[in-house]
Amino acid sequence: MIKVNIGLIGFGTVGSGVYSLLKKNSALIKDRSGIDIRIRCICDIRADELGKKIKNTAITKDWKEIISDPEIDTVVELIGGLNPAKSIVTEALRKGKNVVTANKKLLAEEGDAIFDTQKNSIANLFYEASVCGGIPCIQALRDGLVGNRVDLIMGILNGTTNFILTKMEDDGLSFAEALKFAQQKGFAEADPTFDIEGFDAAHKLAVVSRMAFNKKINFKTIPIEGITGISRDDIIYAREMGYAIKLLGVSRLTGDKVEISVAPTMLPLKHPLASVHNEFNAIMFSGDMTGPIILYGKGAGSLPTASAVVSDIVQIAQKGKSSGIAAKATVTAKLLESKDKMHRYYMRLSTLDSPGILSKISGVLAKSDISIASVMQKAENSKYVPVIIMTHKCSEKGMLQSVNIINSFDFMERGITFIRIEE
Amino acid sequence: MIKVNIGLIGFGTVGSGVYSLLKKNSALIKDRSGIDIRIRCICDIRADELGKKIKNTAITKDWKEIISDPEIDTVVELIGGLNPAKSIVTEALRKGKNVVTANKKLLAEEGDAIFDTQKNSIANLFYEASVCGGIPCIQALRDGLVGNRVDLIMGILNGTTNFILTKMEDDGLSFAEALKFAQQKGFAEADPTFDIEGFDAAHKLAVVSRMAFNKKINFKTIPIEGITGISRDDIIYAREMGYAIKLLGVSRLTGDKVEISVAPTMLPLKHPLASVHNEFNAIMFSGDMTGPIILYGKGAGSLPTASAVVSDIVQIAQKGKSSGIAAKATVTAKLLESKDKMHRYYMRLSTLDSPGILSKISGVLAKSDISIASVMQKAENSKYVPVIIMTHKCSEKGMLQSVNIINSFDFMERGITFIRIEE
Repeated sequence: MIKVNIGLIGFGTVGSGVYSLLKKNSALIKDRSGIDIRIRCICDIRADELGKKIKNTAITKDWKEIISDPEIDTVVELIGGLNPAKSIVTEALRKGKNVVTANKKLLAEEGDAIFDTQKNSIANLFYEASVCGGIPCIQALRDGLVGNRVDLIMGILNGTTNFILTKMEDDGLSFAEALKFAQQKGFAEADPTFDIEGFDAAHKLAVVSRMAFNKKINFKTIPIEGITGISRDDIIYAREMGYAIKLLGVSRLTGDKVEISVAPTMLPLKHPLASVHNEFNAIMFSGDMTGPIILYGKGAGSLPTASAVVSDIVQIAQKGKSSGIAAKATVTAKLLESKDKMHRYYMRLSTLDSPGILSKISGVLAKSDISIASVMQKAENSKYVPVIIMTHKCSEKGMLQSVNIINSFDFMERGITFIRIEE
Repeated sequence: MIKVNIGLIGFGTVGSGVYSLLKKNSALIKDRSGIDIRIRCICDIRADELGKKIKNTAITKDWKEIISDPEIDTVVELIGGLNPAKSIVTEALRKGKNVVTANKKLLAEEGDAIFDTQKNSIANLFYEASVCGGIPCIQALRDGLVGNRVDLIMGILNGTTNFILTKMEDDGLSFAEALKFAQQKGFAEADPTFDIEGFDAAHKLAVVSRMAFNKKINFKTIPIEGITGISRDDIIYAREMGYAIKLLGVSRLTGDKVEISVAPTMLPLKHPLASVHNEFNAIMFSGDMTGPIILYGKGAGSLPTASAVVSDIVQIAQKGKSSGIAAKATVTAKLLESKDKMHRYYMRLSTLDSPGILSKISGVLAKSDISIASVMQKAENSKYVPVIIMTHKCSEKGMLQSVNIINSFDFMERGITFIRIEE
């Protein structure tokens, strides 16, 4: 039996989940893994209040007490955000304490500094809980796919946006209605910006991409697009043509270049990620030996995320320093240029219903080497009619150029909606 | 860098895959995991032939040479079947050599003896490749869900049967046509019995159930039903009612009893396992902390299975003896009795088209406390007409009793087809 003393910093949703999980399942964990996890100290700004509820465990407001406690083997950082999380993680590693963190923002935005510190430490850094909560995807990538070159990651990495898109599709709600419903159900924050604009998904994608490709990812260079521009109509038209719209994080290694983005994307209904509904997350890794592997489950929440934290604590105790993988990236990924990103697209235009317009549009597309796969004009008794165009593969650059030109025509009611298609 | 010398026993589909994988990705594995895997010796009955193709590696016909080689750390058993695999695994463990195996039959049918030997050994036994090929599901259960009590496993565990059912559903093929097509495509063996009768899936289910529930599973007591009784009509009717038919392995812990079976099962089309198509496998573990976690991918094949073998070799090298989990079961699972297995059912009858028949059938069902949720009678210009009944929840015992009685009525053209429904 190996005894592990942990210091828990942050007693919010995830921290209290870890406490509850260990209270309920400690004996089971000991029995299965040979690891006896003890919470030696909890650090939280609400220490006084907490002290009334939790007895038999030391509680402090000062995270430095945890870092400097020689009895603590593993520091569990669950406060999120950049500061003081960065100082906590850095100082813990410098003191030779293992770190388990759920902090995707820290790893995505400050990963270079954090992993450098880890490399020079005798201790380890695990972060399963930072990507897709209860789904053991980091572990699958690190251990399960250790024999594979992974060149494609594709994921539904945010539960809030997937819940909203599911409600728009299943119940015909507008984006605003679906967002409100998600807030009522507790699947969206009062200020939902971080989720609906795609930043949360992008943080997760940056963390797994670094690990899979062994390249540093400059977070600021990732193109991020949220779901606020998706209408009920887009979802209906997509379904008519056999597609679902998902907020997809995609990271693809092409030669030595990486194509990485978070954006609403159309997936064929038969694609396994298309059937990921509601608040669930799923992530696909494509290995050169295994082919596509998908992991699916709850990507957030107190107990699912706590499960990932506890798994990391056990893994570190079992493996020690040996497993300091993914911290080895030394080179920053070069991103694929817009002219080399080749995809099919869905375009929705609202144009005057008069002759010659389609010819003008297709002329513009042709100039950018975009050929049309299908056009669908919806008959409506109104001045403007919706026109849906599906293209063959074309460059992103060509698409952006064409959209700019077409948007300037005076027969257009408003800007084009265009959505990338993945097969 | 930790150097691991392996002895590879069996150079068939999986063994040659391990060889190819290491040839291609050894540097990557070293870089990521710090483990340097060397094939020290290959054992195969076709040693002479092999020797002409493979240079620089010792080749033998005698597995005892591998077991007694003091330089070999880990024995990789890939010959399958019970004998001599059991002797190989047992003797290797006794000699203190780690064992990695893909042998589901051995672990399912002789697991008690094998795991006992492992418990008394200083060495470890890993078997990721025994369940669902390239999908890292054993590892997810052992490590990722270590903090969870898992009480439900549900899986599409056999690629051959899933491919056949997909072709029956998508292309309207009969079972015989779909089987033939699967054989042509290499997804079914010339003698497909082992797959289509559900034995392969049952082996896998036994292995994961033992691990998840920490109970011995007596393989001979598992009810196993294959897909040969499923007709195109069943698949069509199922879809009309919003279900897909899958060969499902289900293992459920209810109190201290286990309900375990492999059988064709109806799943709602929205269920994430319903959208697992073709030769793909998927397995769901339901943890008390995480909720349902699903892993999806290729469940067989040379390189996917090799990926699992290599992952195990690395895991053992990193973890050592600490991770000898799942070998702890001391008690054999008590199985849930037929009268306590409560499910909804689909029933398809072919009866004479005359009045009073439905009343007789529903009378029999009522006597076994089975209430009908819906009845659908298909109009056909023939002597016998199909009648589809969906029941509410009832006991398996009641269903079997009713089926027996109804089958004896002379208005029946042939025996009833009945299929369990999972939600």
